[in-house]
Amino acid sequence: MTIRDNEMSTELQNDLILRTIRHEPVGRTPVWMMRQAGRYLPEYREVREKVDFLTLCKTPELAAEVTIQPVDIVGVDGAIIFSDILTIPEAMGLDLEFVKGQGPVFHNPVRNHRNIKELSSEVTENLAYVGDAISETVQQLDGRVPVIGFSGAPWTLSTYMVEGGSTKDFSVIKKLLYSEPEVFRALLDKLEPEIVEYLAMQIRAGADMIQIFDSWAGVLAPTEFEKFSLRPISRVVKELKSRFPGTPVVVFSKGAGVHLNALAETGADALSLDWMTDLHSAREVCGNRVALQGNLDPGVLLTDPDIIRRETKQMLRAYGDGPGHIANLGHGITPDVPVDNARAFVSAVKEHSGKYHKHNDE
Amino acid sequence: MTIRDNEMSTELQNDLILRTIRHEPVGRTPVWMMRQAGRYLPEYREVREKVDFLTLCKTPELAAEVTIQPVDIVGVDGAIIFSDILTIPEAMGLDLEFVKGQGPVFHNPVRNHRNIKELSSEVTENLAYVGDAISETVQQLDGRVPVIGFSGAPWTLSTYMVEGGSTKDFSVIKKLLYSEPEVFRALLDKLEPEIVEYLAMQIRAGADMIQIFDSWAGVLAPTEFEKFSLRPISRVVKELKSRFPGTPVVVFSKGAGVHLNALAETGADALSLDWMTDLHSAREVCGNRVALQGNLDPGVLLTDPDIIRRETKQMLRAYGDGPGHIANLGHGITPDVPVDNARAFVSAVKEHSGKYHKHNDE
Repeated sequence: MTIRDNEMSTELQNDLILRTIRHEPVGRTPVWMMRQAGRYLPEYREVREKVDFLTLCKTPELAAEVTIQPVDIVGVDGAIIFSDILTIPEAMGLDLEFVKGQGPVFHNPVRNHRNIKELSSEVTENLAYVGDAISETVQQLDGRVPVIGFSGAPWTLSTYMVEGGSTKDFSVIKKLLYSEPEVFRALLDKLEPEIVEYLAMQIRAGADMIQIFDSWAGVLAPTEFEKFSLRPISRVVKELKSRFPGTPVVVFSKGAGVHLNALAETGADALSLDWMTDLHSAREVCGNRVALQGNLDPGVLLTDPDIIRRETKQMLRAYGDGPGHIANLGHGITPDVPVDNARAFVSAVKEHSGKYHKHNDE
Repeated sequence: MTIRDNEMSTELQNDLILRTIRHEPVGRTPVWMMRQAGRYLPEYREVREKVDFLTLCKTPELAAEVTIQPVDIVGVDGAIIFSDILTIPEAMGLDLEFVKGQGPVFHNPVRNHRNIKELSSEVTENLAYVGDAISETVQQLDGRVPVIGFSGAPWTLSTYMVEGGSTKDFSVIKKLLYSEPEVFRALLDKLEPEIVEYLAMQIRAGADMIQIFDSWAGVLAPTEFEKFSLRPISRVVKELKSRFPGTPVVVFSKGAGVHLNALAETGADALSLDWMTDLHSAREVCGNRVALQGNLDPGVLLTDPDIIRRETKQMLRAYGDGPGHIANLGHGITPDVPVDNARAFVSAVKEHSGKYHKHNDE
């Protein structure tokens, strides 16, 4: 049984994910999917027809509704709160717009010390709606599965803030970090404590686990990865763990497969792996320092249930015997995935992972 | 001195790249830049004002002119032929258009066995203009620097052919390769010999070295990387080496830093490294099996000459003492780089690499 590290009185009926992270014995491998509350679900699209994306994030009742959908519809073992990593930059005063065909756009990007000084410090206050959505979700779930909170990592958030949106070649931020590293550091110094406070607020609101997404870790050269991605994440994780030692923190550093050993030293309880990383080798590198999450190629979900089962079994086999593995995709589920295919993935984990946990009977 | 492995009678005055690939002693590290014949050069843009991109590729005199520009203007130690990896699919009968803001588009993508059967087999004949451009370049260069030929790798070419252009999530090809691997294999079986013949034709026309670009290697899961990227490249390299043992083949497998050990076994003479790969560790992994090329973050060229010098010196230090390193970027130079910055990179290699080759004096 898992005693929840927050003021929730409900006991968790399904704490497979949390026990797995502690390398405790479980009867089967737990499973959830990044971006599981999303457009591949007709029930989600129905809600989105009524409100735009940001309004959905900011309306706790609706956010809770779509957060819980995949628990009911697909049968996942955890509920990640429906939100977006760009809520922090927006709460800092950047004017966020989702432009069709172009993705997120910030009309007032951050390029110098003045821009950084102008960023709001009332981030957590401005993001109270995320806490409310989590509380609402926890209440409605009533202990069925754990609730997962999240934030973007300092590096990934800064790419959007400096570039002013999505980018292919990261030219503005690369120029800034190589030419004016002190400006860039000032931005990270601003972001790090805000991320910590934001995640602390999510834990206080009832999040049972936290995931930090560094989606763009893979575009940095090794030295810059260490300075601008790895160290900032370590600082966030360590501060969080010192305040909430019982709440697991998962780090997803996409495209950073060559840096697994260093990532295992960030203080994170688990690493979420992209699909390019070999799960078997990753376990050898990381040992028992961290649990591992992942890492089916999300492209597999575009095929059919038979192939999904075959590939999912291969993923389970790659991790092998014993606890410490949370099944997931190597990146978010895409909107064009048929719901039955998502279900096939989740079912395959549930049906075929038991044999890797037989030592429990001994 | 390097005897050229083709019918060219000219002797090479600067064969630093070729000697480096053979791990022979050199006085300094040679340097060139991927996409060095390109839009950052005003002289290139001047030529492009007169003709569109494909016409430039297909006009040997003009292609030779822009191929030689960076030798004259920036001082690189090799001249990569101006062309595009998509010439092969186009020569196979796919209707190629460069759509502004969208990149390359094939209006008749390859999705099934029928599409594959319809592909033309007169690829090398259709690409005679590339051979002519190489001959013209060799003649005009008159042995000043080696000429580098190239092709896209089977995997990367197939992504464009199946997706019908550039893609963000590779959903069409992922679905195909997981659901109908036999269709996908048929496409690779068609591509591999065509790539070999195309490169053989380039060598016969005077190319002193060949580079194979697998730009999208990094989106494949480990098993699929081995099946669909690594093995096809190995087959191409081995066939080429058996026919032209004296012509070095360089493999650039972008985003495949975790697979360096396997890449060193492809039969390639050198690996070109992306900027996310640590050059020092790469040398440890590869030993003397291959030379290494790369790998400055192309984003560094957006800064200024002082910073470029600092980062270039760090790259040279990372490789360390002795031959076997060809300085280059970790990816193509971008159009927004000032020419003086490109020059600063090339000069920094020339000025600061001598001390890593001191053993030559002993």
